Amino acid sequence: MDPADDLLPEGLEDRLPQSAAAATRIENAALAAMDAHGYDRVRPPLVEFEKSMAKRMDGLLTRNMFRFVDPRSLRMLALRSDMTVQVGRIAATGLAAVPRPLRLCYAGLVARMTGDMLDPRRENLQLGAELIGSDGANAAAEIVELAIATLEAAGARGISVDFTLPDLVDTLAAQEFPLDAGQVAAVRRELDAKDAGALVAAGGEAYLPLLYASGPVEDALAKLATIDAGGVLASRIDALRQIAARVDGRARLTLDPTERHGFEYQSWFGFTLYADGVRGALGRGGTYTIGGTEEPATGFSLYPERLIDIVSSDEPGRPALFLPITHDRDTARRLRAEGWRTVGALTESDDPAKLGCTHRLVGDAVEAI
Amino acid sequence: MDPADDLLPEGLEDRLPQSAAAATRIENAALAAMDAHGYDRVRPPLVEFEKSMAKRMDGLLTRNMFRFVDPRSLRMLALRSDMTVQVGRIAATGLAAVPRPLRLCYAGLVARMTGDMLDPRRENLQLGAELIGSDGANAAAEIVELAIATLEAAGARGISVDFTLPDLVDTLAAQEFPLDAGQVAAVRRELDAKDAGALVAAGGEAYLPLLYASGPVEDALAKLATIDAGGVLASRIDALRQIAARVDGRARLTLDPTERHGFEYQSWFGFTLYADGVRGALGRGGTYTIGGTEEPATGFSLYPERLIDIVSSDEPGRPALFLPITHDRDTARRLRAEGWRTVGALTESDDPAKLGCTHRLVGDAVEAI
Repeated sequence: MDPADDLLPEGLEDRLPQSAAAATRIENAALAAMDAHGYDRVRPPLVEFEKSMAKRMDGLLTRNMFRFVDPRSLRMLALRSDMTVQVGRIAATGLAAVPRPLRLCYAGLVARMTGDMLDPRRENLQLGAELIGSDGANAAAEIVELAIATLEAAGARGISVDFTLPDLVDTLAAQEFPLDAGQVAAVRRELDAKDAGALVAAGGEAYLPLLYASGPVEDALAKLATIDAGGVLASRIDALRQIAARVDGRARLTLDPTERHGFEYQSWFGFTLYADGVRGALGRGGTYTIGGTEEPATGFSLYPERLIDIVSSDEPGRPALFLPITHDRDTARRLRAEGWRTVGALTESDDPAKLGCTHRLVGDAVEAI
Repeated sequence: MDPADDLLPEGLEDRLPQSAAAATRIENAALAAMDAHGYDRVRPPLVEFEKSMAKRMDGLLTRNMFRFVDPRSLRMLALRSDMTVQVGRIAATGLAAVPRPLRLCYAGLVARMTGDMLDPRRENLQLGAELIGSDGANAAAEIVELAIATLEAAGARGISVDFTLPDLVDTLAAQEFPLDAGQVAAVRRELDAKDAGALVAAGGEAYLPLLYASGPVEDALAKLATIDAGGVLASRIDALRQIAARVDGRARLTLDPTERHGFEYQSWFGFTLYADGVRGALGRGGTYTIGGTEEPATGFSLYPERLIDIVSSDEPGRPALFLPITHDRDTARRLRAEGWRTVGALTESDDPAKLGCTHRLVGDAVEAI
């Protein structure tokens, strides 16, 4: 037997007991929070036709799915790399006739063929919620509040939410600060890069003030309102104020109105989620339309891997009750029903301490070891 | 957009809310039961090197895994079709230094390239437990008891356990009823087929009484003891009696000592799990040695899909509390903390009944609709 056969592929790993316990606790707490807000869990399959998933996602992401031929249909299958596209398909098919707004949530493993610089992992736990049938300010406020409540339930502390307006340039270019069709992409790119010189060179001088309309949400919105002399952004500014009011005091709120990276498929609103002590984003969300039916929707996804890593190092040791080889089985069942975790001896010589037990059953009494 | 793109591949399906709720409830209850018995959950990845999984499983099963080339290592990867081989790998590698017996459990999705006549599904929820470091009568009794407790927690009623002795023919052939090496396979096959004529023709006349040593476990063991005049089976008979005594009254127990199908990798003991109203087996287990390290182990796996189907049709409607568009958010949070499931209005005209709500918040009072 070649020991190299026991290695796992790069970017794929086992969760051993401590880390698995943290992942399970976070997954269950997050699902319970979403359920309490009226979101029904759906469980799509691991594998689908590549084409079905591809038509609801970015081409680049499609190319990063593990793909293989289906011996039954002779069509290409893919291992899911994103569950939101599956939830969109479910809303458009199996649940097409259910009244809107439709509230769905999900949790499961997703995989991609290669990791990236920021995250070498090729498998991630993804969980989130989609509010289907609405992309207005109320929907956005509900989803931001739910994302915060879900992160709180998962144990995140010091939550920050960074808002963005993904179609800001398109909106302004169509009315207040006209741009040629050829200029729009360049202006978006230089705003994203926050490069003032290049922005001016690209003909986007009128957009310069947007670079400074970022930071804590109140101030940034005030600056954005000044820029928006013509008022085409008024409804967006109002909506962001409404969302901010809804979650006031529960998270630090910032606005980076020109941030586009990762929001290519969002419509007017997007947001990124952070928490204290967790490097990088924990998730993101926003408004969008479901590919195919073009139904409006709002949702968020969390990738809690780094939160799991942090929490699992603090995972407390748990009491465990050693049951000697002869013990009363009804007593043991009763104690388990009361919440005890039991570890049964297999031989007379089993050592309770070696097995991690903190207590021992003596007759029908529980004694600390 | 081609509507055919929205179909799922044969044998793969979505769990919509009712079915997903049943699956989640069953999965969580089963995991809680295994946890209460001291089994630590591990979470292996969806994808591994094909070779690593193949060396711990039957060649036929390996060929039925979805396989694809890893662009990083240029080696073949496979989507897992069985989590027990992954748990075996974990016991042999990451947890090699942890004291034995080692108690591990798992739950997750597995997939195979093609379904079969009995079950066309190509994706299944698999959950189970492995007791690593022991394959004696006490270990077998603990695992059978745990399998029953897990099924009970999952909502199965009228549980039956059918015991078998996978290496029975080899044991008898080596001592009491000698067979040529060439005869062993034929005798095993005809016993498995329960074909008395063919058994005699294959030179297995001495084995004929085994065909009748099946049925309720007490009677069958008594018959087996009569056959075993030389006593080579005495320790196995004692062990089965010990296992049966351990779970007395919690399940119908039967013995089919020559059943081999599905137990090719079990050593002296195997069992199959059934429940009232559920077509086919819900799971199986037994004693084995882990490929590679040859460490003894005992375990079981459940495939609760059919139980989920039954339970989900009975899944009760749940109360849901409608929150009008203007409501006190602290009151809503308090009610959720008390266990209420809330559904927030997005517009003045949202219809609570259409959204499945049973109650409505009026001021800070909950009123039935």
